[in-house]
Amino acid sequence: MSRDPSQVSIMAKKFPQVQPGGSLILAWQIKGKKVLVVGGGEVAAGRILNCLNADAAVTVVAPSTGLNDEVRHRIAEKQVTHVDRVFEPSDLDGAEMVLVAVDDPAASTAIWKLCKEKKIPANIADVPPECDFYFGSVHRDGPLQIMVSTNGKGPRIAALIRKFIAKSLPENAGNAIENIGELRVKLRKIAPTSEDGPKRMTWMSKVSDTYNWEEMCELTKDDMDNLLLFYPANKVPDFDILRALRGEKNTDVSKLDVFDGSFGFSVGA
Amino acid sequence: MSRDPSQVSIMAKKFPQVQPGGSLILAWQIKGKKVLVVGGGEVAAGRILNCLNADAAVTVVAPSTGLNDEVRHRIAEKQVTHVDRVFEPSDLDGAEMVLVAVDDPAASTAIWKLCKEKKIPANIADVPPECDFYFGSVHRDGPLQIMVSTNGKGPRIAALIRKFIAKSLPENAGNAIENIGELRVKLRKIAPTSEDGPKRMTWMSKVSDTYNWEEMCELTKDDMDNLLLFYPANKVPDFDILRALRGEKNTDVSKLDVFDGSFGFSVGA
Repeated sequence: MSRDPSQVSIMAKKFPQVQPGGSLILAWQIKGKKVLVVGGGEVAAGRILNCLNADAAVTVVAPSTGLNDEVRHRIAEKQVTHVDRVFEPSDLDGAEMVLVAVDDPAASTAIWKLCKEKKIPANIADVPPECDFYFGSVHRDGPLQIMVSTNGKGPRIAALIRKFIAKSLPENAGNAIENIGELRVKLRKIAPTSEDGPKRMTWMSKVSDTYNWEEMCELTKDDMDNLLLFYPANKVPDFDILRALRGEKNTDVSKLDVFDGSFGFSVGA
Repeated sequence: MSRDPSQVSIMAKKFPQVQPGGSLILAWQIKGKKVLVVGGGEVAAGRILNCLNADAAVTVVAPSTGLNDEVRHRIAEKQVTHVDRVFEPSDLDGAEMVLVAVDDPAASTAIWKLCKEKKIPANIADVPPECDFYFGSVHRDGPLQIMVSTNGKGPRIAALIRKFIAKSLPENAGNAIENIGELRVKLRKIAPTSEDGPKRMTWMSKVSDTYNWEEMCELTKDDMDNLLLFYPANKVPDFDILRALRGEKNTDVSKLDVFDGSFGFSVGA
């Protein structure tokens, strides 16, 4: 299909410009999978925590003489499997990811090469050319994860930015996401059939569009129960109405006259 | 090495608690590597842009009859290689990552299984169990990338949070990172030897510790040149001094008496 040049230039303006030089930032799914951490120092400790926070099955290979206190703690608490010796190639069996953090460039490079032969994604700490991926500075708040990468230009700034973001976010940011997830589950309980699907989706979108970010963070469990009362009528009340309904358990919404505009949708509108 | 129980509980408090349920967020390095995108619709268009922003060599397999305008534009601009037909297993040859976005669950699952046989990381859009990784909502500003993941609990909220963060960041956030990267390069030019290494690192850390986030964003190229004048003395002036020096090209710092405290380090201190 050919287009005339003027058409092409119009299209070029319409679509986002490529901004080269970035990384492909991914949320890797490693739940229950074997991650091999080679080394037991401070960097290894950080990697281990990252992996445990993503529910990985972590194996640490390192002689116990050289373990950092945090790594020792993870082992004592049985949060990780410990192999008390230096790396051997058979350690790679079944590993779905390999993270190396030892002060031995020759050994590191040998492990990297083995991983590439076996096509196992790997990261050799402090050796960018021997990394399929880098780590960044991650803010975590319940189901919310925010990762800051400066693409290697300033790890100290990445940490500054992460702290800046953590301070700027509303206090219950993670909570807002849990709420929406929970609301979706509750909704599926009162409207479980697949025919309800489109209405459920429309209503959930309406919820997202009606409340702002701060209101989402403020949503309580009572608010959610009250909010669900409006689903059969396919309505989403102003947040002020949810506030007004607080404390009134088992409200009969129809008695509130919210649908004729006399109370509900005029408040705060 | 055994520890008494009280010691263990002290350690438990000392180290970060594991927060399960997250993902392992990674900055994948895909520069120059072949990424295969199967499909040419709207979702594929988003994936393609993500990959091009990370300098990947993208191949799109999709019949040209079904291409979305943005994908068509990327092909016309030769930003991607186009294979004008449906997927064939040989398309996987040399691919380091596979992203599938077609409305054909059976075909998608077949591709997923092939990828797992060949140990190629893959993402089948909208089929979480057939994904090695998920995408999130990414804010990009030059070298700065901020990725928001709600771990599948609310993609709409992820986008809201990304927009909230974009608004909260100082206007020149990406610029601050470029500046620090540039400063490091310039510093290496005036102090190139490996013996300079430790002093270079100490001085760069001092720079990061002296200026706050907003000041880093404000740093101009002139400021950087002036700042580098202080490197031989291993000093980092207050930001007010950099402001005061603006416009005065080729300043002889020694004449400013900045090192005896009469001008330099008393200003704004």
